[in-house]
Parts: sequence; C-alpha cells; structure tokens
Amino acid sequence: MDQNYKLLISYDGTRYHGWEAKPDAEMTIQGKLESVLEKMAGAPVKVIGAGRTDAGVHARGMVANVHLDTEMSEDKIRNYLNRYLPEDICVLEVKAASERFHARYNATGKTYRYSCYSGPLKPVFNRKYVCVLENEPNLELMRKAAAYLTGEHDFASFCGNPRMKKSTVCNITSIEITRSGAYLNFTYQGDRFLRYMVRILTGTLLEVGSGKRSPESMEAVLAAKKRSEAGYLMPPQGLCLMEVRYF
Amino acid sequence: MDQNYKLLISYDGTRYHGWEAKPDAEMTIQGKLESVLEKMAGAPVKVIGAGRTDAGVHARGMVANVHLDTEMSEDKIRNYLNRYLPEDICVLEVKAASERFHARYNATGKTYRYSCYSGPLKPVFNRKYVCVLENEPNLELMRKAAAYLTGEHDFASFCGNPRMKKSTVCNITSIEITRSGAYLNFTYQGDRFLRYMVRILTGTLLEVGSGKRSPESMEAVLAAKKRSEAGYLMPPQGLCLMEVRYF
Repeated sequence: MDQNYKLLISYDGTRYHGWEAKPDAEMTIQGKLESVLEKMAGAPVKVIGAGRTDAGVHARGMVANVHLDTEMSEDKIRNYLNRYLPEDICVLEVKAASERFHARYNATGKTYRYSCYSGPLKPVFNRKYVCVLENEPNLELMRKAAAYLTGEHDFASFCGNPRMKKSTVCNITSIEITRSGAYLNFTYQGDRFLRYMVRILTGTLLEVGSGKRSPESMEAVLAAKKRSEAGYLMPPQGLCLMEVRYF
Repeated sequence: MDQNYKLLISYDGTRYHGWEAKPDAEMTIQGKLESVLEKMAGAPVKVIGAGRTDAGVHARGMVANVHLDTEMSEDKIRNYLNRYLPEDICVLEVKAASERFHARYNATGKTYRYSCYSGPLKPVFNRKYVCVLENEPNLELMRKAAAYLTGEHDFASFCGNPRMKKSTVCNITSIEITRSGAYLNFTYQGDRFLRYMVRILTGTLLEVGSGKRSPESMEAVLAAKKRSEAGYLMPPQGLCLMEVRYF
C-alpha cells in the first residue's frame, strides 16, 4: 500500500551539484536518494525536497517527502538508506506522514546558518564548512544593519535569479549574529528565501562590518530592488540549511 | 644569525603520505613545511619533527624544530607559513628555542587520541576524523583490559614494524576511554609509541569490547611479544596526535 513518508536529511554538500536532480548531473542529493529508494522499492520514486540547496551548500535538517509501497518499518527504511547512501549523506529520521503532506508546499519557515572564521590561524578541521575572512568585521555595525533587513520586505536586491517571476517579498523573522571563538555565525529565520539570498545578505552584512557600507544604507538597498545595489555573493561552503518548519 | 625555533603544528592528514618527507612522495607534512620555509629563508632548511605520523593520521599538537637565519619575528614567520601552506596545515605557534632544543630527542611524552563513532546514524561532518564501528562495544570490559596495558611493558606484540631493532619497552601512563554521545574516544599518554602501536592497541581493545577477547587475556598478549597475538590494526583516519610533552 502506498504510504507517504517524511525524511529528515543531513549532508555535506562539498562533492555535490546541489540538492536538485538534473538529467546531466549525477552528483545531486535528490538523485542519490532516489536511486537508493528505487532499488529498495523496485519502482520509480520521486523525492520532494523542502527547497533546493545550491552546489556546495550543506544541510543538517533538510526535509523531504516520498511515497513508497513497502512493508518495511520506518527504522528499516532509514537503516537501508544509510547503508547504501554515500558517507556524506545521512537520513536522520523516516516517519510516516499524512497522504497530503508536501515537503515544499507545507513548509512554513526555514533556518539557515552562514559560518565564517576570522582568526589569526586556519580552521584546518572545519575548513569545508566555513568561509575564512581576511579581517575581523565589526559585530555592532552588522547587527544594526541586520535590524533594517529583519521583517517583511521585498528582497529583490538580494535575489540571485535575474529572471525571477514570482514575488520577491519575504518575511525574515530574525537575523542573529554570534561569535564563538574565532567563528562567526549568521543565523537567518524566515518564511521563505530567494536564490542565493542568504549568501548575498551575509556578503552585504560583512561589507557593513568592514566599514564599506553604513547600517542605514540597507534601507536604500532594499528600496532599489536591484541586485547590483546589494553586496558580495559569499561562497557556498559556509552555508547550511539547519531546519525546515511546518505547522 | 642562525636561530632555533619550536613550531606547534595542526594538520588534517587525509591527503598526505604522512609526516616524513620522502624523495618519492611529494605530499608529506614535513615536505610542505620545508618547501615553504626554504622559499622564506632562501636556503635549504631541515624540519625535525617530534615523531612521524603515518599516512592519513591527523595532528592537533605536532611539535617540530627548525634552524633559520631570518630577521622576521616569531609571529611574522607563523603568518608567512600559514599564508603559503595548504589549507589543511596550520602552524599554531612559532617560538624561539634554545640552540640545543631537539623536537624528537627532547620529547618526554606524547598524547594520542583514537576516535570512533558508534551510533545508528552516520558522522557526516566528522567522517574523515573517526572510524565508524558496526557495533557498540562494552566500555567496562575495555577499561578493564586497558588497565592491564597501562604501565611499563614490552609492547612488541603491538608493534607494526617486524624489523624493529630498538627496544619495544614503553611506559603507557594512562589509557582513558570516554563516550560523548555517539563518539568514543581512546586517549593514550605515554613516554614513547611504536609504529602503529595506538591503532593496534585500539583494535585489540575493541575486540575485548565486542567479547572476542577477555580483559585478562591482555597479559598473555603482552607476554607473547608477537604481533600475531594482538588485535586488528585500526584505519588511520581515527588517529590524532594531540600533544608532545617536554621538560
């Protein structure tokens, strides 16, 4: 009997062309999941992710759903997946979900974290999960700028898709900037995120932190609705999808 | 003027053929350090390590010494090294040392840690720094076995070099086995360690932990002085040199 399952997934995106399965790219997270599930189920399988992560971006809490016709228990499915998936993808949880649960349409919010390292040394053991900064940014200035960006705004200036046809209005409910030793974490909570949005927000905040922009200038950047007005696109390896929220 | 320096070094050994520079292996930690220092000093340089780590073994506290004729300050030398060394090698500290300081001859002890993961999931973000266990070993049995191995013994049974001509007597002052979540750490302190010794000790302790050997059988393994009497050689990626001690 066909059953809908909710999957919670963690992955190191370093080796992958992103989440989304593409006909020409073998190395995608969705593609790897589908190919193991198809072997398990003996039938074609479609995995629906809560969103797409780009090439090189990581996840500690990606959510997906999939319909399967199997007699296996939730834990058996999880263990089967973990046995046959590569070592940089782990399914943390498999749970039976209601027939109508849709990982993307039903998501009400997400949390992303962008991690940087700014210290005199090098993050040898974390180097694939942070972006190394040349200089120490000013936390207070960045927090002031983040306050301008928090709330419901049109984030067209922070959208990396020049042909975006849908709304670019998002509600960013919080931006937290914390330091832990030489590590600097930017944590974003919001209802939805546009393409490259977290990486452009972080690049723009770091330009404020280095004195290149003022915190107050964020108002004009938002109002311009032009990608060219916002800051630098940060590299993918510092980004991690932490959580997807549902009602 | 020629000055002797003490270096404290951290590295991810995954990509390397070990610490020791070899004529036919370009990828060694010593080789990388020497080649950057030679560019800096404009003269041939010999880096002396406290010991050799094998291919794939990591370090958070390797110590080395090197004689340099330079006007640069300690911090300038450190920053120069970190700028030109690959991102998986970091020099944590450079300090002027007495002329007679020798990183290997003067070392009085070392601490190694062997890390394992035994849980239902997979250590996606730490996978290069642990060995994944299939089963959960018994901690109490392993601690009992470790007590037999602690102290001054002839560790010939735990020596991976079949042509070892020097003494195989070592004084292991402590073996601590701790669990932190799904991670299991074996921490060894001793005056000296033989080739593969920590990896063979850990493999043997894990055989005790799985019930394959008794804790009491360690006495006979030590007494045999034969490699074939000890257990499995664990893979390199779980091993890390944590500290080198000096008077």
